[in-house]
Amino acid sequence: MSEELVPETKESPQPPGPKPREGWKKGGRMLSVLLSVNVLLLACTLISSGAFNKVAVYDTDVFALLTAMMLLTTIWILFYLFRTSRCSDAVPYLDSHAGPIWLQGGLVLFGVCTLVMDVFKTGYYSSFYECQSAIKILHPIIQAIFVIIQTYFLWVSAKDCIHTHLDLTRCGLMFTLTTNLANWMAAVVDESIHQAHSYSDNSSHARLTSNGERSSSMAIEACPCNTTFCQIFERGYFYLYPFNIEYSLFASTMVYVMWKNVGRLIGPSHDHGHGHIPSPASLFRETLFIGPVLGLLIFVVGLGVFIIYEVQVSGDKSGIDQALILYYSFNIACLGLMTLVSLGGSIIYRFDQRTMDHHKNPTRTVDVALLMGAALGQYAISYYSIVAVVVGTPRDLLGGLNLSYSLLMIAQHTFQNIFIIESLHRGPPANQENPPNEPVHGLTYANQDALQTLPAYPSTSRLVGSTPPTPQETVTVISVSQSNWRRRCLKDISLFLLLSNAILWIMPAFGARPHFNNNTELDFYGYSLWAAIVNICLPFGIFYRMHAVSSLLEVYVLS
Amino acid sequence: MSEELVPETKESPQPPGPKPREGWKKGGRMLSVLLSVNVLLLACTLISSGAFNKVAVYDTDVFALLTAMMLLTTIWILFYLFRTSRCSDAVPYLDSHAGPIWLQGGLVLFGVCTLVMDVFKTGYYSSFYECQSAIKILHPIIQAIFVIIQTYFLWVSAKDCIHTHLDLTRCGLMFTLTTNLANWMAAVVDESIHQAHSYSDNSSHARLTSNGERSSSMAIEACPCNTTFCQIFERGYFYLYPFNIEYSLFASTMVYVMWKNVGRLIGPSHDHGHGHIPSPASLFRETLFIGPVLGLLIFVVGLGVFIIYEVQVSGDKSGIDQALILYYSFNIACLGLMTLVSLGGSIIYRFDQRTMDHHKNPTRTVDVALLMGAALGQYAISYYSIVAVVVGTPRDLLGGLNLSYSLLMIAQHTFQNIFIIESLHRGPPANQENPPNEPVHGLTYANQDALQTLPAYPSTSRLVGSTPPTPQETVTVISVSQSNWRRRCLKDISLFLLLSNAILWIMPAFGARPHFNNNTELDFYGYSLWAAIVNICLPFGIFYRMHAVSSLLEVYVLS
Repeated sequence: MSEELVPETKESPQPPGPKPREGWKKGGRMLSVLLSVNVLLLACTLISSGAFNKVAVYDTDVFALLTAMMLLTTIWILFYLFRTSRCSDAVPYLDSHAGPIWLQGGLVLFGVCTLVMDVFKTGYYSSFYECQSAIKILHPIIQAIFVIIQTYFLWVSAKDCIHTHLDLTRCGLMFTLTTNLANWMAAVVDESIHQAHSYSDNSSHARLTSNGERSSSMAIEACPCNTTFCQIFERGYFYLYPFNIEYSLFASTMVYVMWKNVGRLIGPSHDHGHGHIPSPASLFRETLFIGPVLGLLIFVVGLGVFIIYEVQVSGDKSGIDQALILYYSFNIACLGLMTLVSLGGSIIYRFDQRTMDHHKNPTRTVDVALLMGAALGQYAISYYSIVAVVVGTPRDLLGGLNLSYSLLMIAQHTFQNIFIIESLHRGPPANQENPPNEPVHGLTYANQDALQTLPAYPSTSRLVGSTPPTPQETVTVISVSQSNWRRRCLKDISLFLLLSNAILWIMPAFGARPHFNNNTELDFYGYSLWAAIVNICLPFGIFYRMHAVSSLLEVYVLS
Repeated sequence: MSEELVPETKESPQPPGPKPREGWKKGGRMLSVLLSVNVLLLACTLISSGAFNKVAVYDTDVFALLTAMMLLTTIWILFYLFRTSRCSDAVPYLDSHAGPIWLQGGLVLFGVCTLVMDVFKTGYYSSFYECQSAIKILHPIIQAIFVIIQTYFLWVSAKDCIHTHLDLTRCGLMFTLTTNLANWMAAVVDESIHQAHSYSDNSSHARLTSNGERSSSMAIEACPCNTTFCQIFERGYFYLYPFNIEYSLFASTMVYVMWKNVGRLIGPSHDHGHGHIPSPASLFRETLFIGPVLGLLIFVVGLGVFIIYEVQVSGDKSGIDQALILYYSFNIACLGLMTLVSLGGSIIYRFDQRTMDHHKNPTRTVDVALLMGAALGQYAISYYSIVAVVVGTPRDLLGGLNLSYSLLMIAQHTFQNIFIIESLHRGPPANQENPPNEPVHGLTYANQDALQTLPAYPSTSRLVGSTPPTPQETVTVISVSQSNWRRRCLKDISLFLLLSNAILWIMPAFGARPHFNNNTELDFYGYSLWAAIVNICLPFGIFYRMHAVSSLLEVYVLS
């Protein structure tokens, strides 16, 4: 009874620090999630219905919805920027982990590509504007404005922990997230239809294309795209779709972290361990040089393989098999090496006695969730490939290579995730201002004879510089030397994995699609199903590589 | 540096209580989730490939995988039961919130129905065993064994917080979860194919069925099911599919909570607020009686409407429109009333000064996530209906009713979720051993004149029985009287919503499918797409109703 009547005295289970201004955080979050879910489901319904030709939802309906959503989001962003610029105490804290430089840079890069795509799209639809509805020309223009304003917004505000108009901000951010996800869905669907269209024109597999897709292309044929400009525009915007898809994923991630940070209180002790960047001079000082050298070798060889593959695939049909064998062989070697190295890293951790970091860290939680979630994309593609190769009838060299490639892909993602996540949860790194080498060597020479009296397995040890050395401290010496060796190994491992992930990002991001050059899965699943699987899952796989690179950089710094 | 060398002294950020036996909980969880994700993706690949007839994956492959998974799970469960029965300190704590009685009861009920289904299935496939592969008869038998052992396991172990072999237990539980989800997917796919088959036989809409599904039914025709027994078996197991689907969802929920509880430490102060069950005698003492009476009325009318609907739909075609109008009208009235009442409850909370409960409570978090997640099923169906009605051409009375029904369904789910989640997060209820009524009345009469001197808005108040009454305490009197009135209202609201949710659960759970009697969506999306949407989403909608009933019971107790 008394608890009900004395509301002011029961606020104890709050985090220490400034008093929060809202009573119930979850309530505000729930409202914004409900808004987002409803809008997203509506968009999903329209987009998925629009993709089926026998359903009477047209792409103009979808474009109209997306345009309206982007306009609303743009207005909200402008309102947000205006408000925070006027009210100085709206953003009392900045989350130093949010919006890291690789995410900001990627956003700008993909944003610029999306702008170019919008220019091409506007040009394409303007080529025959007399028989198109106005919304098709309006949509890319509005999208361009939206991309410019959103990129600016995320550039300046990604680290904000805003503390005014909490519920309104949450709803606005969730709506922004929803708009980006809807854009992503629309781009994936659009690209799949477009690909199916060009595939049924060019390939002998036209029989596999369903009637729906073919009649979709018929609708476009009513207004022919005959001029040279029009064809350049069409080809251009088709190639730029993947960048638009990545842009939406990047923006979604950043907006989600902003949403998590609304109303967050950050204490002064928050920053330990993560986010500190070493000076460029010390970047390679503490490695064994094997990791970076091997990684650079893989990177350069990979670039060569990629260029040869692209040249052979875009040439005549005869070179495709050879190109695929080259591509798969390189990937199998690279993935196998990465798996072994990740496994080695995990084994080193078994001997590492650093404590785990149990502190709460929302950005790290999001990071881990993204690593695990984005890996699902590549997992799904690999499992579908494995089933196709194992169940399908023709068992040749290419099938075997494809199978090994898919199996190694799963193993590599799994072991790399285990290694990265374990690394991110290790305790804070050693103090770099006092490099351990000098005192260690000194102590070792001073105590050469005491080494005989060591206990079998030292579990605890301490560094005390002022007192005379005892057998206990000699233990420290060996332990430090071992841990130093382990640290170098871990730094090498993270650099090697970083460079390998970079080349594995470049290949699919810049257009390598062995999935569609290799006929095993195409024949097994039919074109439309396989294209849907690859087009939905591959962007996540590409995103995974970028994210892994950034996480491995953090692992390198932390080790 | 020193932190790296002194691992034993840095274990501070642990919860108070007994020292945990594992260093890094997230690591064990990550491993088990990785295992589960991989197995689930493999199962998903096979099941989805098996559903497409042009893909060369046969249902025997799927059955073989499921049988192997169920066998492995059964062995693990037996091992778990054997181990915990031998080792007395394996389960030091029980989570009193886990495995509530409604979930246990539902599990047993649906488990029994699944067993009956397995008997029918075995009988059906045995009728023509000479031209079937053995796995098709083996599968239901293994499934029956699996269901019996798993139901017993969840009955005795659902509340366990196990503390031995943590990683092994986590992996085992995740594998059990994966098996249940794979069974769920297989059942949903199987039911959809079966429905499409019977639909193309019976209905004039056969043109909408895709060729894939029809050729699936051809394969079955090769071995004709001519005997009476065989046909009874076939019809019987078809009707029992929904119960199997619900069984898998129930088991998944319970296994997930067990997984979250592995290695959990429960302090003595954990139980406050939630999970206490009132005596049956006091169950209706504190209500205004309007809620339960109105709820019972809705329940009885709903039952009548449901019976009339089922009779008319199973009769000749002429009665279907009338039955649909009756069904929609009742649902619109019921959903409208529920929306208003939920909204009323949320408004009452705006005047309620009870504090929010900020304590961590994993079971409540899972409850809230399930409420929000399960509502997605009904949301999706409603949005697809809305698009079909709004974009589709024939606008008649039925279309209008369908539109209102779908819109109200979305509103009702949203407002009910807001009300339930806010209720679950309110602070602990008033002490029921000291009912506030008696002292309140006494104080009110003793201080009649002091009422004039009240401050305008009393924000804090206290009940002190021993000292003579002061103006401050008279404030208390009014505040208590108001809060008492509010409590009665909230109890009425929760009882009304509980009974309404119960009738809305009964209708779809026992076979009402207006989605397939109403031609709007069928004509708009085509049979196969619409059947896939409804068959995937409706089980979540049914699960939502059951879950809402249990949550509303908790709200009633807490208010």
